[in-house]
Parts: sequence; structure tokens; C-alpha cells
Amino acid sequence: MTIDDPAALIARTAAAIAPPDADAAARATERQARLTKPPGSLGRLEALAARIAGITARERPRLERRLVVVAAADHGVARHGVSAYPQQVTAQMVANFVDGGAAINVLADHAGARVRIVDAGVVAEIPGGEDLLRLRLGRGSADITQGPAMPRPLAERAIAEGVALLAAERDGEGVDIVGCGDMGIANSTAAAAIVAAVTGRPPRSVTGRGTGIDNRRFEEKVITVERALAVNAPYAAEATDATDGIGLLASVGGFEIGVLAGVYLAAASARVPAVIDGLISGAAALVAAAIEPGVQGYLVASHRSGEPGHTATLEHLELAPLLELDLRLGEGTGAALGITLCVAACRLLDEMATFEEAGVDDSDDVVTPES
Amino acid sequence: MTIDDPAALIARTAAAIAPPDADAAARATERQARLTKPPGSLGRLEALAARIAGITARERPRLERRLVVVAAADHGVARHGVSAYPQQVTAQMVANFVDGGAAINVLADHAGARVRIVDAGVVAEIPGGEDLLRLRLGRGSADITQGPAMPRPLAERAIAEGVALLAAERDGEGVDIVGCGDMGIANSTAAAAIVAAVTGRPPRSVTGRGTGIDNRRFEEKVITVERALAVNAPYAAEATDATDGIGLLASVGGFEIGVLAGVYLAAASARVPAVIDGLISGAAALVAAAIEPGVQGYLVASHRSGEPGHTATLEHLELAPLLELDLRLGEGTGAALGITLCVAACRLLDEMATFEEAGVDDSDDVVTPES
Repeated sequence: MTIDDPAALIARTAAAIAPPDADAAARATERQARLTKPPGSLGRLEALAARIAGITARERPRLERRLVVVAAADHGVARHGVSAYPQQVTAQMVANFVDGGAAINVLADHAGARVRIVDAGVVAEIPGGEDLLRLRLGRGSADITQGPAMPRPLAERAIAEGVALLAAERDGEGVDIVGCGDMGIANSTAAAAIVAAVTGRPPRSVTGRGTGIDNRRFEEKVITVERALAVNAPYAAEATDATDGIGLLASVGGFEIGVLAGVYLAAASARVPAVIDGLISGAAALVAAAIEPGVQGYLVASHRSGEPGHTATLEHLELAPLLELDLRLGEGTGAALGITLCVAACRLLDEMATFEEAGVDDSDDVVTPES
Repeated sequence: MTIDDPAALIARTAAAIAPPDADAAARATERQARLTKPPGSLGRLEALAARIAGITARERPRLERRLVVVAAADHGVARHGVSAYPQQVTAQMVANFVDGGAAINVLADHAGARVRIVDAGVVAEIPGGEDLLRLRLGRGSADITQGPAMPRPLAERAIAEGVALLAAERDGEGVDIVGCGDMGIANSTAAAAIVAAVTGRPPRSVTGRGTGIDNRRFEEKVITVERALAVNAPYAAEATDATDGIGLLASVGGFEIGVLAGVYLAAASARVPAVIDGLISGAAALVAAAIEPGVQGYLVASHRSGEPGHTATLEHLELAPLLELDLRLGEGTGAALGITLCVAACRLLDEMATFEEAGVDDSDDVVTPES
């Protein structure tokens, strides 16, 4: 699929995002009450399934065709020593994804999900791998302490490619649920800048240790985020209402963040639940929500990362994470585990017997879960 | 398998429990450091896999043969109106398990686990079901506000049957991990009494809403637990060191709790990780740990239930739950989800490529996860 007019594709996709189907969600909740269990006893899994019913507009959604998109790119800001790993690790890890040796390969398989790996803009060329989608929108984004990460047309292109990717996957093997993951040395610096710009929080409070950096590198990273925001005004740290998602991506983002933002928009427009992983895929969700706030209703937060910027992101998006396992790897690992829980929640809703079907007496109390 | 001398079988099983293999756990941790991810970035999944390595005495444990034991029994204390459901629901739900319509059937299948259903002592006979293990140690336990739940020899028998069950399953299809679940109207009252006796906490603080009872029933339930403890001294509420697990089970327990306690002991003696579900299977773990404290090293806490007695139990056992999803159903539902996470953690440890294998450069910092 060639994209003639990326900006138009983004606008069309955003405009197609309708609110979740409240009626389907209500019917799912009503069905939950008739299943052979005390009301509310499956806790958050009940609310999760009802939410996915609203997203998919189906009383009993089935999440059989599962996809994890892992988008990778390099970042010019890596030159400031903000990561514990050298830049060539991005390409090496993408090769590891293609070879099936990374954590996301294991956890996607565990979740029954296929993996789509995207070279959105890695510096080094990645050998082999028919399964690798080679977008290569640049040889890494530019150093965001010196100016924008990329020209605005390229930001549009990155998002549009994410939209096209999900459309192609839906047309191909089909997608009932999608998780979003990332790879990119120094991309937690770009993500922290996005989080600071969107939430208005000070860079220090949303900057974390990423792959595991020492105090010296951490201080350098905070300064780098501050500089990136100052240089790329109007998305400065004091901004509290960043509504131009494309401009935000162009100024302090990255190619993989743009592709993931496009995946979120396309998922929401197609009533596909989209599962956020950690800091970087969360920052991509912020970009998507800046373009079209309605995307929020289609997002599921899989886990709370150890990265402070991730908690700020989830609060901004008003999403409660399903898991708190101190994951901070990225790649979509938390999203894959989150898909596992979404599948469990929807299977319970779909497959459990009702009191009537099973011939089980219902409660002699009428008690709501909140009582 | 007939059990000639239940007390001797319990003693033999308890004596066979050795500490987890610290060397295997250390080798697993050492392997984690060489896998293609920043150190510690898989968070609690890394610690979980290392712990299971210690339990199984294998550097790379494989949890392929998965079992959930669901033990059911009735409780004489149900006559005090402590549940929102009538007593016949126990038998009806066991029939639902046999027919495959309950939440545990769905979640065990989701976890790739088989389910072994046990009628440990349900009042009504359950129709059909070759897969149902009919122990029927009594037609429900006795009313614990009037005297002991069961004679001591029957408590020994219940535990020994749990030991024999796990041995038979190991000899049959094999067991790499086992989860423990329960069913029994009013069994959260018995479990609260066990938790109060073992932890020394006031009955009110460890008594919950069970299936979802109103304030009137809740007050009745607290009084019932208090009476059960007073009548069945020496396991009164003020006791803080209940070391006679068999006596504890006989005085305020239940048949299904005894069977699950036996499963825990047998699992620990065979180096099989045993996953606790909610309040009732947690109380069974307290009984097992009272018999042999070494069982603690083989237990995995799947989730934190909404029941307050469950949190007290996990604190007493020094176990941190993997999930907090407000589940309060029992049946082994949380345990099945916990098995899913154990499998994920062990697959990551076993299947991920090392830096060397994947040709990925390692960190140029040496940073521990805590730094």
C-alpha cells in the first residue's frame, strides 16, 4: 500500500473513531450477572471484558487473532550518552526479534499472538528477515536538543505508515486485538520529552533510568529532555495542553513512536482494542490521543512500568494498568501479558455457563459488588 | 491407592520436604543476567523464574504438565446464614465444574492446565462425572460453633487423601505445577477461623463478605467465627502460634481445606511449585505450613483477593501476590492465572537468547536493578 497523502489518511482515520458501543458493554455486564459466580467476584476481569465488549461492539467478543507490533528506530539524541547501551544495539535487537530470541518472541507466543516487526528508522541495515517491515523513514531521528526530531511531513508519514500497517494486517490474517511495543536505544529520552510536554510535568519527574543508567547518565538525561523541550517550543515543559500530536511527534518524538501512534488510531477507528506496553508505547498513545482524544476509549493499559513517565502517561489517559510486575523492558512484553488477560476476561464472558444453563441456584441476597 | 495409616503418610511427606535448591536458583539468576535484555528489566518475572528454579532444582524449569485441583465440601456452619447462597449450591457448582461451565474450567483451559475435581465432603451426591474424585469424607463438616468440624482421624484422612491425590496425578499424567482451588458454601467462615487462629488477628479483621453478603449477615459471620474459636480452644482468637495443623483443621476447618493442605505438602515434598488461589486455599496453606513450615518455600501466591483474611494469610506466609485484580471467586481461578504467569516467567528464562547467542552488545554500564 502506497500512501499518497499521509495527512489526509491520518485525518480520515481520526474522523472514523466513534465512541465505544455503550449498549454492547451494558449487555456484556448484564450477561456477567447471569454467569455462575457471585456478582462481581471476577473483579477487574469483568470490567475489562465489558469494556472490550464496548470497544468491539460485541456482547461476547472473541479475541482469536492477536497481533503485537514492535516498531524500532534510532534516535540522534543517543549521542548524549543517555542510554546504558551503544546505538548499534537497536539493530542487533531487531535482528534478535527476527530470529525469535527476544523476550517479546517468547511472550507473544505465550499469548498466542503473532509479531510484526517494523524497522521504522534504524541506523544500521538489518540483515535477513522476510517478516521485517522495512519502512526506514530515516537513519534515526535527528538530535532533539538541536532542533526537531524530524520534519513535519516525515512525522505524518510515520503515523500514516502505522495506520496502513494495521489496515494491511486486518486485511491479511485479521486482528481482534493488538499490542504495541518498541525498540530504540535512547527512545526513553524522546518518550520522556513527549510525556513532559503533554502532561506539563517537570522533565525530572517523568525521566527514568531506561535500560538501567547510573546517576551521572541520569542527570545528563534530565538535562537532555529539558533542552529538547526548550529548543522545540511550543512544546516546552510548561505546556499543559499539547493538542497538535503531529507537531509533538515531529519536534521531540521518533519514527517508531509515530508508527505506533498510527497503529492506535487505526485500531480505534476499526473497533480493535489496542494494548499499551510501557513508557514508549504509552508516549505513542499520547501522540495518538493528541490527534484524536477519542482513541482513549480503545486503549487498554497492560502494566505499570517502573518508569515514572509511564505512570504520568496512564494518569493522563485515565487508564488503570492490569499488572504491576516492575517490567521495564519494552518490546511489547507487558502488552503481550496484557493480551493474555484480555483473552482470559473475554473467554470467561463468552464461555461460562449461566445459572439457568447450569441449574445452579442464584444468590438469595441481592447485593451489588460495591455493597 | 488405599491409605493404611494417614498420620504416618502425612509425617513421611512432611519429613521429605527439603529446602529449595539455592544453587539452581543462583544458576537461573546468573542465566537471567546473560539474556538479551537489560538486567532486571523483566522485574518480578525474573525473581519468579529463579524461585521456581530453586523449587524444581532445575536451572531452566519447564512447566508443561499443569494441574488445578478443585476440592469441594459442605460446612455445617452454613446453617448460621453466613453465605448469600443456599447449601445445595456447593453440589450444583461441582456439577458445573464437571460439565465444564464454571470460571475455573475456562481459566484452567486458558492456562493449559487440566482440572481435577474432588468431592471431599459435599452433602448432596453429585450426578455423573467420571472425572470427579469422590472422597466424600462426610456429608459436610460439623457446625464449628458447637464443637470440632471433624474428628482428628478424619482430618488426618482428608490431608492424606490430598497427598495421595497429588502422588497419583504425578504417577499418571505428571505434574510440573499445581494450583489449588476450592468450592464450598460457608467455607470462607471456616477459613476466617483458621486465619484468625494462626495469625492471632481478631476475627472481625480477617472476616470478609465471601460471596457478597449484606451487613446483617456479615455481623452474624463475625460472631460465628468468634464462637467457633471460643468453642474450639486451644485455637482461640488470642492464639498466635498454632503449630498443630491437623488439630487446627479438625477444630475449625473443612474437608476440602484438608485435601488442599495435603496437596501442598505432597507438592513441596516432590519439588513441585504449588500455587495458592484465594482465602480458602490460603487457609489450607496455613494448615500445611503449621504441619511443616518448610512448605512455604514451595508456595506461589497468585493474587491478592478482596477478602481481608487473604492478605493476613499472605503476610503470615511471607508471600507477595503476582496479581491484584479484586478476584474473590475461589475455584482456583486466581491460581490458574498465576500458573499462566509462572509459565511465562519460566519460558522467558528457558527460551530467550543470550547476548552471546544473539550477537548483541551488552551494557557498557554495570548497574544492578536496584541502582
